[in-house]
Amino acid sequence: MYTLELNELSIEQFLADYWQKKPLCIRGGFRHFSDPLTADELAGLALEENVDARLIKKDGANWQLDEGPFDDFNQYGEKDWTLLVQAVDHWHPDAAQLLEAFRFIPNWRIDDLMVSFSTPGGGVGAHLDQYDVFIIQGEGKRRWRVGMPDASLKQFCPHPRLLQVSDFDACIDVEMEPGDILYIPPGCPHEGTSLEASLNYSVGFRAPAQKDLIGGLADYMLDFQLEGKRYTDQSRTINASSGRIEQNDVAAIRQLMQQLLDDEQLISEWFGSYITQPKHELDQQEPDPHYQPDEIAEYLEEGSVLARLGGLRCSYFQAKSDADVQLFIHGDRFPLPPEETETAQLLTDYPRLSIEQARHFLHTPERLYFISQLINQGYWYFEE
Amino acid sequence: MYTLELNELSIEQFLADYWQKKPLCIRGGFRHFSDPLTADELAGLALEENVDARLIKKDGANWQLDEGPFDDFNQYGEKDWTLLVQAVDHWHPDAAQLLEAFRFIPNWRIDDLMVSFSTPGGGVGAHLDQYDVFIIQGEGKRRWRVGMPDASLKQFCPHPRLLQVSDFDACIDVEMEPGDILYIPPGCPHEGTSLEASLNYSVGFRAPAQKDLIGGLADYMLDFQLEGKRYTDQSRTINASSGRIEQNDVAAIRQLMQQLLDDEQLISEWFGSYITQPKHELDQQEPDPHYQPDEIAEYLEEGSVLARLGGLRCSYFQAKSDADVQLFIHGDRFPLPPEETETAQLLTDYPRLSIEQARHFLHTPERLYFISQLINQGYWYFEE
Ligand SMILES: O=C(O)CCC(=O)C(=O)O
Ligand SMILES: O=C(O)CCC(=O)C(=O)O
Ligand SMILES: [Co+2]
Ligand SMILES: [Co+2]
Repeated sequence: MYTLELNELSIEQFLADYWQKKPLCIRGGFRHFSDPLTADELAGLALEENVDARLIKKDGANWQLDEGPFDDFNQYGEKDWTLLVQAVDHWHPDAAQLLEAFRFIPNWRIDDLMVSFSTPGGGVGAHLDQYDVFIIQGEGKRRWRVGMPDASLKQFCPHPRLLQVSDFDACIDVEMEPGDILYIPPGCPHEGTSLEASLNYSVGFRAPAQKDLIGGLADYMLDFQLEGKRYTDQSRTINASSGRIEQNDVAAIRQLMQQLLDDEQLISEWFGSYITQPKHELDQQEPDPHYQPDEIAEYLEEGSVLARLGGLRCSYFQAKSDADVQLFIHGDRFPLPPEETETAQLLTDYPRLSIEQARHFLHTPERLYFISQLINQGYWYFEE
Repeated sequence: MYTLELNELSIEQFLADYWQKKPLCIRGGFRHFSDPLTADELAGLALEENVDARLIKKDGANWQLDEGPFDDFNQYGEKDWTLLVQAVDHWHPDAAQLLEAFRFIPNWRIDDLMVSFSTPGGGVGAHLDQYDVFIIQGEGKRRWRVGMPDASLKQFCPHPRLLQVSDFDACIDVEMEPGDILYIPPGCPHEGTSLEASLNYSVGFRAPAQKDLIGGLADYMLDFQLEGKRYTDQSRTINASSGRIEQNDVAAIRQLMQQLLDDEQLISEWFGSYITQPKHELDQQEPDPHYQPDEIAEYLEEGSVLARLGGLRCSYFQAKSDADVQLFIHGDRFPLPPEETETAQLLTDYPRLSIEQARHFLHTPERLYFISQLINQGYWYFEE
């Protein structure tokens, strides 16, 4: 269990004064920090086929970028490189625990845990991200500089797959030590340079752009064969020019599209599916053979601990207390009756259920059947 | 030249009382009608690779549907079949002339000209369409029945690619003769059965559904790498449940999407591109070698007639008289200065330019250069 310590700040103050506004260095954000994984374990993950990993090496003014899976790291030498592994929470349950300290931000906003290992001098160069990030210092020391958003900064590509930013004025310039945490809002230039072999954990967020949302809604309508309403023009009058698209034609088209967005039910059902879709592969393992519901009941009664698959995205929406609960898991929607709010909450709020919590699923046959389905898909599993 | 005669109705009355409201049989809609093509020419088109053609044959309660290109039609016998050819306006300039009689509806709403040839007893069966259509009777006689929209009608598929509708009450039941025209609004069941070998010309319309519009806008943003604004939540407060998507989260997402639709410039520029995209192949022939602008000037001065490629979709939009003219051709956007409204109008309103009209393009070097580009792409051509 990792607990975030904001020192003199409350979480409310952090949200009000820093979140999406300005960067913050939280000294000792995790007290007595001990790394959930070792550099060797991280390197091991980077050898695997279905894990996204990159290695970035600086050689004077040249930048090299290699993509995983890797064979070995000997060729890269002793300094000036960083290995970055995406979605480590999908593969490493202990590392996934780090995310839990940030759940004062809702699930759906959290993206994944990226972990980097840097040799002395290693870093990805000064750059901007479009998303908020908390960077936790693990073993080793790293110097981090962070600036405020600045429209005059120039972005450039020292390598086709590397976007960096020109020199910036730092408002934060720190030597991070184990357990220190940096919060960086979108658009703030930042640059980390390792002083010694060092691990960094990045808790990244999701903030869809208008393009993503429109594209996601379009895909949803395609997938579910939702045509929606068709354009009509019952009150058409003669056009002076047949080639001219009139203002009121465009206005009618806009209105038709707007009516779609006005459909609160459609939008909430789509959004929940959209935002729980995975971006990276999961370590999903279907139990073979499947469990029978009565076996599952037995395990739960015995006190076996039910854990959620690392990185599984799940959220719920309930328009009002007497409305159906829309539970979203991994992009799928499961409508539950209004009184099942607690079911949704247990599944989405807790990465592992206490014995007490798990017993909730024994109380009705529907709940037992539902949790059985989720276990048999490999979404939840019994922890050894 | 075909001129639409509405008998006792004015076009204003037709629009007010019938357009998108109820079906109408216009006796002698084209006086002294003579077919722009022959059944043999139509059959010839159906042999070609890039022409969309279907043949539908009724055999008792069974329906057969074959898709083109066809080799010959002998196997189909003497009765009970209809050959339908899409987008004949793309391939047959004389047939394309039929569309011109309907230009009191703007270009962008018009889809294409479908032509059918039916043997006695031939028809596609009773069905509904989602679009308005004018069906012109050419040679031969055909019985047409049309009903009003009726939610109790059942749709069914007597063949996987054929959607028909159960028996309906007809409010129109006519024997159509050459030059008669039937107007059918969306959703009205209709059924044509040939009494003798018969040609029908269908002027079809486009009415995008919400799904099409959202999908079109998403594609446009992708194509032009328009990210749009990103979701922000500067005023976030602590959530009681991290798994819960709050009402105001969804409201903020909806608002972000709505801001995109509120961008009048974006929407008009996208819509013009979207709605002028072709659905069927064009008979586009790039001149080889390309013309030089001064050669084109010479031809125009000599009085050569400039014609627009059949089926080429083009429209323009101008938000106000001192705003740029957005000219859309074949899905592409050409911004022109505000004073070029007439340029846009000449290109989009007239399928062929009079000698006087064509001289417009000689008056400035920019116009001459622009029309040269369009000619060299095969969008406009000199008529022999
Ligand atoms: O760990 C690193 O070197 C890069 C971290 C970073 O820039 C980020 O998470 O945004
Ligand atoms: O010509 C035909 O047989 C079919 C015409 C038709 O149903 C239409 O154009 O909507
Ligand atoms: Co970064
Ligand atoms: Co029809």
